[in-house]
Amino acid sequence: MPVTAKKAQQMIMAAAEKADEIGVPMVIAVVDQGGNFVAQLRQDDALLVSVSLSWNKAYTAVAAKMSTETLGTVSQPGGPLYGIHTAENGRIVIFGGGFPIEEGGKIVGGIGVSGGSVEQDMACAKAGLAAYSS
Amino acid sequence: MPVTAKKAQQMIMAAAEKADEIGVPMVIAVVDQGGNFVAQLRQDDALLVSVSLSWNKAYTAVAAKMSTETLGTVSQPGGPLYGIHTAENGRIVIFGGGFPIEEGGKIVGGIGVSGGSVEQDMACAKAGLAAYSS
Amino acid sequence: MPVTAKKAQQMIMAAAEKADEIGVPMVIAVVDQGGNFVAQLRQDDALLVSVSLSWNKAYTAVAAKMSTETLGTVSQPGGPLYGIHTAENGRIVIFGGGFPIEEGGKIVGGIGVSGGSVEQDMACAKAGLAAYSS
Amino acid sequence: MPVTAKKAQQMIMAAAEKADEIGVPMVIAVVDQGGNFVAQLRQDDALLVSVSLSWNKAYTAVAAKMSTETLGTVSQPGGPLYGIHTAENGRIVIFGGGFPIEEGGKIVGGIGVSGGSVEQDMACAKAGLAAYSS
Repeated sequence: MPVTAKKAQQMIMAAAEKADEIGVPMVIAVVDQGGNFVAQLRQDDALLVSVSLSWNKAYTAVAAKMSTETLGTVSQPGGPLYGIHTAENGRIVIFGGGFPIEEGGKIVGGIGVSGGSVEQDMACAKAGLAAYSS
Repeated sequence: MPVTAKKAQQMIMAAAEKADEIGVPMVIAVVDQGGNFVAQLRQDDALLVSVSLSWNKAYTAVAAKMSTETLGTVSQPGGPLYGIHTAENGRIVIFGGGFPIEEGGKIVGGIGVSGGSVEQDMACAKAGLAAYSS
Repeated sequence: MPVTAKKAQQMIMAAAEKADEIGVPMVIAVVDQGGNFVAQLRQDDALLVSVSLSWNKAYTAVAAKMSTETLGTVSQPGGPLYGIHTAENGRIVIFGGGFPIEEGGKIVGGIGVSGGSVEQDMACAKAGLAAYSS
Repeated sequence: MPVTAKKAQQMIMAAAEKADEIGVPMVIAVVDQGGNFVAQLRQDDALLVSVSLSWNKAYTAVAAKMSTETLGTVSQPGGPLYGIHTAENGRIVIFGGGFPIEEGGKIVGGIGVSGGSVEQDMACAKAGLAAYSS
């Protein structure tokens, strides 16, 4: 099943609900299998930098076929992919908050969240992911 | 009243409903008073090029304090603002589908729609605008 | 059927053969349904500017769901989409040589050719397109 | 001998064969003596991020006249070229997978491979290099 607009909105709403619970406004983005934009929402007062970060986290998760957190572990100084974060004009994000959306063993899209600590971003992104399957 | 995430989503839903009525999938974007991103939705199968166009239409309407259609009339070859469409790396859009959101004589944000003919884009954007006031 | 690497190479070879026949070296690019890169070849002595042009033509054909020639007819000065060529940092091409790859009424990718006159580019792109179905 | 389109395709095919053998889809790119594009292929399901990475690895190998792996050893934090990876809008790659193509003591082009681990990328790039001389 492709990541439809409707499904993306549900994911965003679930992530936003988690953000409300945590008490930190977030920007949440969803992309499709080709890494292309589906939907994005900036909660009131969320960081401006999070607009591009959330989108790029979602994109990175699809483009690299792994979470941005995992990509971060191999791209630290001295690591095998150190320097990858400047690729595509800096569009590649190497800290947590971006996850691939998987279905039937295939990656069908990505979700990215930015606005709080990396842990908070990841918690909201996971809440969004859970809504994909529901 | 600022353009809240909630209000932006209502505008997007109203524009999307109009798009469904017309039968052409659209991308709809809403920005705030500072021209910054609030929300965006790409309906299923909407043109990829409309992702940037809709956002940029919304931005242009705030940045130039006029509709993108109006800006287009003064930026044709020979016109007073000819060439403005290349500003900000081509972010300025000079054809219809972007409108400022006005309230109490002030511009408080912008909406941009792309995906169909300019007339269809404008019709959807106006439906979105109407939802701001409702 | 997605545009596979194998199919893309066949399209490129067919377009290149046509270019040899015409006697003008070309750059030929093929993208998939999401507008993402599949394959590209620059024939010996082909124009450097054609590297990005051919890729962008292929991308534009998918992103706008029409040939770049058709897009050009509506984006001339005074036309409804005048100014669209600066979108996405100038990635949108509004002269001939880019065609969507269609199958079963759906657009599954795009081919773009650059290097000669627009007519020559289009002839080579069409030769490439024909190889998709064969 | 310049890196012709024909030679580049042979290199790509050899690298792709190695990738098939390893079982990881790759993107393979070849550039000429001027660092300019010659040919590129994205194998089915290869990472999107590898499109730019492979091209940039090939470019970097020519532009810096050394392998990307070697460049990486001198551009870690504290190293003499630390920070070089952000040059040219992030086009410079500082991990393995890009090699100069040498002939008669001169650098005549570059090959870049991306898609797997750095070791896998390098193995495929070397297979491509071997095809240059054959």
